[in-house]
Amino acid sequence: MSNRYRAPVDDLRFALFDVLNTDKTFEAVGKPEVGRELVDAILDEAARFTENVLAPLNSVGDEQGCTLDTATGAVKTPEGFKAAYEAYVENGWAGLSAPEEFGGQGMPHVVGAAVKEMIDASNLAWSNFPLLSHGAMDALQFHGNDWMKETFLKPLVSGLWTGTMCLTEPHAGTDLGLLKTRAVPNEDGTYTITGTKIFITAGEHDLTENIIHLVLAKLPDAPEGSRGISLFIVPKYLLDDAGKTTATPNHARCGALEHKMGIHGSSTCVMNFDGSKGYLVGQANKGLMAMFTMMNSARLGVGIQGLSQSERAYQNALNYARERLQMRALTGPKFPDKPADPIIVHPDVRRMLLTQKALIEGGRVLALFANTQVDLSHAAPGEAERSDADAMAGFLTPIVKACLTEWGVECAYHAQQCFGGHGYIAEHGMEQIARDVRITTLYEGTTGIQALDLVGRKLLQLQGAGFKPFAQMVGEFCQANANDPLLAPFVSELSSLLQEWVATSQSIAGKAAQNPDEVGASAYDYLFYSGYICLAYFWARSVKAAHATDAASKRATAKLETARFYYDRILPRTRMHLAALQSGADNLMRLDADLFD
Amino acid sequence: MSNRYRAPVDDLRFALFDVLNTDKTFEAVGKPEVGRELVDAILDEAARFTENVLAPLNSVGDEQGCTLDTATGAVKTPEGFKAAYEAYVENGWAGLSAPEEFGGQGMPHVVGAAVKEMIDASNLAWSNFPLLSHGAMDALQFHGNDWMKETFLKPLVSGLWTGTMCLTEPHAGTDLGLLKTRAVPNEDGTYTITGTKIFITAGEHDLTENIIHLVLAKLPDAPEGSRGISLFIVPKYLLDDAGKTTATPNHARCGALEHKMGIHGSSTCVMNFDGSKGYLVGQANKGLMAMFTMMNSARLGVGIQGLSQSERAYQNALNYARERLQMRALTGPKFPDKPADPIIVHPDVRRMLLTQKALIEGGRVLALFANTQVDLSHAAPGEAERSDADAMAGFLTPIVKACLTEWGVECAYHAQQCFGGHGYIAEHGMEQIARDVRITTLYEGTTGIQALDLVGRKLLQLQGAGFKPFAQMVGEFCQANANDPLLAPFVSELSSLLQEWVATSQSIAGKAAQNPDEVGASAYDYLFYSGYICLAYFWARSVKAAHATDAASKRATAKLETARFYYDRILPRTRMHLAALQSGADNLMRLDADLFD
Repeated sequence: MSNRYRAPVDDLRFALFDVLNTDKTFEAVGKPEVGRELVDAILDEAARFTENVLAPLNSVGDEQGCTLDTATGAVKTPEGFKAAYEAYVENGWAGLSAPEEFGGQGMPHVVGAAVKEMIDASNLAWSNFPLLSHGAMDALQFHGNDWMKETFLKPLVSGLWTGTMCLTEPHAGTDLGLLKTRAVPNEDGTYTITGTKIFITAGEHDLTENIIHLVLAKLPDAPEGSRGISLFIVPKYLLDDAGKTTATPNHARCGALEHKMGIHGSSTCVMNFDGSKGYLVGQANKGLMAMFTMMNSARLGVGIQGLSQSERAYQNALNYARERLQMRALTGPKFPDKPADPIIVHPDVRRMLLTQKALIEGGRVLALFANTQVDLSHAAPGEAERSDADAMAGFLTPIVKACLTEWGVECAYHAQQCFGGHGYIAEHGMEQIARDVRITTLYEGTTGIQALDLVGRKLLQLQGAGFKPFAQMVGEFCQANANDPLLAPFVSELSSLLQEWVATSQSIAGKAAQNPDEVGASAYDYLFYSGYICLAYFWARSVKAAHATDAASKRATAKLETARFYYDRILPRTRMHLAALQSGADNLMRLDADLFD
Repeated sequence: MSNRYRAPVDDLRFALFDVLNTDKTFEAVGKPEVGRELVDAILDEAARFTENVLAPLNSVGDEQGCTLDTATGAVKTPEGFKAAYEAYVENGWAGLSAPEEFGGQGMPHVVGAAVKEMIDASNLAWSNFPLLSHGAMDALQFHGNDWMKETFLKPLVSGLWTGTMCLTEPHAGTDLGLLKTRAVPNEDGTYTITGTKIFITAGEHDLTENIIHLVLAKLPDAPEGSRGISLFIVPKYLLDDAGKTTATPNHARCGALEHKMGIHGSSTCVMNFDGSKGYLVGQANKGLMAMFTMMNSARLGVGIQGLSQSERAYQNALNYARERLQMRALTGPKFPDKPADPIIVHPDVRRMLLTQKALIEGGRVLALFANTQVDLSHAAPGEAERSDADAMAGFLTPIVKACLTEWGVECAYHAQQCFGGHGYIAEHGMEQIARDVRITTLYEGTTGIQALDLVGRKLLQLQGAGFKPFAQMVGEFCQANANDPLLAPFVSELSSLLQEWVATSQSIAGKAAQNPDEVGASAYDYLFYSGYICLAYFWARSVKAAHATDAASKRATAKLETARFYYDRILPRTRMHLAALQSGADNLMRLDADLFD
């Protein structure tokens, strides 16, 4: 009954190769050598590492947490975290999807995403130490100069150092235009950074010899608001001329660790920059663009964090439901020789399990698909193909982030309910999952912020550039499979949802032109409405793929029944979201703020 | 920004007197002297006690928790808990709704429920110490003999001792028929009790000189299963012939404290009964009936726990949304002199706040209404009135328990989201609420068990005895107000929902007769479908009441706008639940248990 984790390698393989045909993506991005065999080997190796090295440290991290030595500002990570990080680096996981020219293994992002699910599931708190290295790598790869790539990117890729994203300040979270951290130019071209950042994940730790902070700050002559933000590299320790870490501190010090609901093993730091030396990344006052590069990568990553916790919660709930004997089936004893039936015989327990299964397996395909679009956006042969893929990745990023994290919370919830009172007790581990996953709907932009990004930016500002190719793809699938007896029931529902989705998206644009509050009033419900339609599409594709591979297989049966459950019992959530988003902004805006008491 | 609580006395008064006309209930149960003035005074006094004495101990309890001295089995409660309990007893709160003949104050249950909301909101963990005394009081009042009432009931009513409910065992939670605790009759008419109970709330503590355990156990010749369960009184310390506590332990010892997700200040004990002396309550082998008496009282009480945490979460989220400055309103700056607008200007923040407000204020009326039915079931003048009220209380109990606790989790969730990343940090207190309230959907029967009780027992077995008078009341309200211009939009929707509700209830009965799995397959969704319709009814009544009292008041405006929000944006959840419950049992039952992986 303890909190276990077995990497879902088979379903990852199925999603990658059977549903998404990622071998074709690998070819399209000029990496035909990344075939099924190589990916299989990587997944197997990742399964071993995460099950054997990271998973056993999950509860250790929760119990011990990180500790701060207030005299030195040094943060100690839980027992075993450092050794695990060393193994991670030795095995080459740090640079798995980083370009080979910077020392990475050059694997496609979608392979990295599959591995990331296992890392996150096995130990969410630990996964935060390498997480933001990826965002920092992306920012440096796309916005850094050659010296920065040589000096900072390569050690991040090798895992010698880790990275952070220093955005938030006490009074500036979503609204980065309000930030107060200052950067003053020095004569040698560097900058002196002064200010306080909060909620800095992995801001300080004992895993690596140096930490590379990417810090948003304002230059003295910067314009007001978000157009006056610049991005700086601030290493924890200064470097020598050869670019090696010295023992000279750069006045980037952890002032406090936050006391959090969960992910205790992850250090969440108040970082004080007290005249630290910094290097400007990209152009002055254009820091937000580089920040968005980091952010998009981090948002897809946090979506996978949500998925990962669903998977772990589900495995344990399923295990418990098969072992826990309680009451008889409503249709009569199923195991008359036992004192009671296992609770998996009860329809309501199955409802909770199937909800998890449907959201996890569908969500997995959705997340991996979004990552294939990231790969294609970088390296597909045609310009139009790259730009469509980039737009689709942009459209799907807030959906992946918001849906997969909210479903993570939901799955952890169902898993706790399956355990009954035991789900509230620490020893079973379900309550840790519920506490840990709770951060994922908050950091890297809350669910509400994802929704605003989807509607305000991706749908309206970018005029549905990502929605259109996605909708077209769904339409083509429907057309191609409308007469397939197996798929027809799904396709019929999916087609009408697609029509409705297109019409709804257009109608939001029309309403928003009349009243800007309509953007915010429809955003949340539009996001989930869209997310459930996306999943309906990927479930239909999963049924098709499982039957194409082997129609008589257990997998084909399981995918078909889970898809039926999804269409019958989860997809009706679109009715609720549609009604809410169509009800308009008035019912939200009319009540005076003073009358909310 | 710290975690505050202000007792919502005004809305409690409004719900009691304006919406529910409880003065008429007081007259009907022969207590005309309990008028508005007396209740006002009680509510004010309770507000002072809970705000000033209990609320400040809320975070103390979370941080310190209870501690067990393994050498003696004694449990120490957090600092201040004992003094608060003494003040609670001195002020007469312990016996507020207990009959005067046993030393209580004889207040109606509905007044006790209103006071309980404040106690629970101010300190959920603390509230668990007196909570189960109420269940024990009910069990002894209705099933105990005169000696038991004199000896055990009176000290419970005075608060001198507290009570527990010892039901669960490691392998027997929902399925009490599996329990192994044994009761062997002694020659003097007492019994010797041996066994281990888990999850015993307030099983051991330092607040009172004695603790009265109500223990379910099996007699040697008991029939198998739940028909062979008897209920026993087991005091922690033996009594002398005068019924006073002696220093002689009765071998009822706390073996361990559970490590829980929340309510750390509440002691959740493993209780070992090692040859303890017990007294049979009621008839042998009829213990389940007495247990249900305790349970129903406890279930309504836990529903109020859920409500209470919603209220506390909402107050803090609202406060934060008014103070936190971040971004400009989508329609342009509302406070141009400030660096940004308070986040309450944003539609999505309002969505989260109004969801809480609608669920809390509607839920409060629902919970108090259910408690008026408890009062009427005991003491209404006519037999038919008592029996209708009893059936309505029975029908509403699982709805109150499940909905108010699930909404408690939901409101805590929205409140955390309103705080953004700060919602995850301990100092703001939101995460404690989220952890604390999480127990309420698990203990005293999970949400799934409430749903089975509603459909299997209340709807089918009792043939809708409670549903019918409730539906009739809603129908009469619709008829009476269909032509009121203010209420017509609500009534029109409510009427059609009522028709649908009646038809759906009948159809479930029909399907269940064909296939027992349909009970479990529809139960969860039917419960929430019903809960949202109940709330639609109480919201319409609230609008009517607020306008009847003063149509030009701020309250009338606030109730009207919140009701509109509820009907537009929450009530569509019934579409989702209806579709799910109508989809039948097959989509849950078809997948083989081996194929869930």
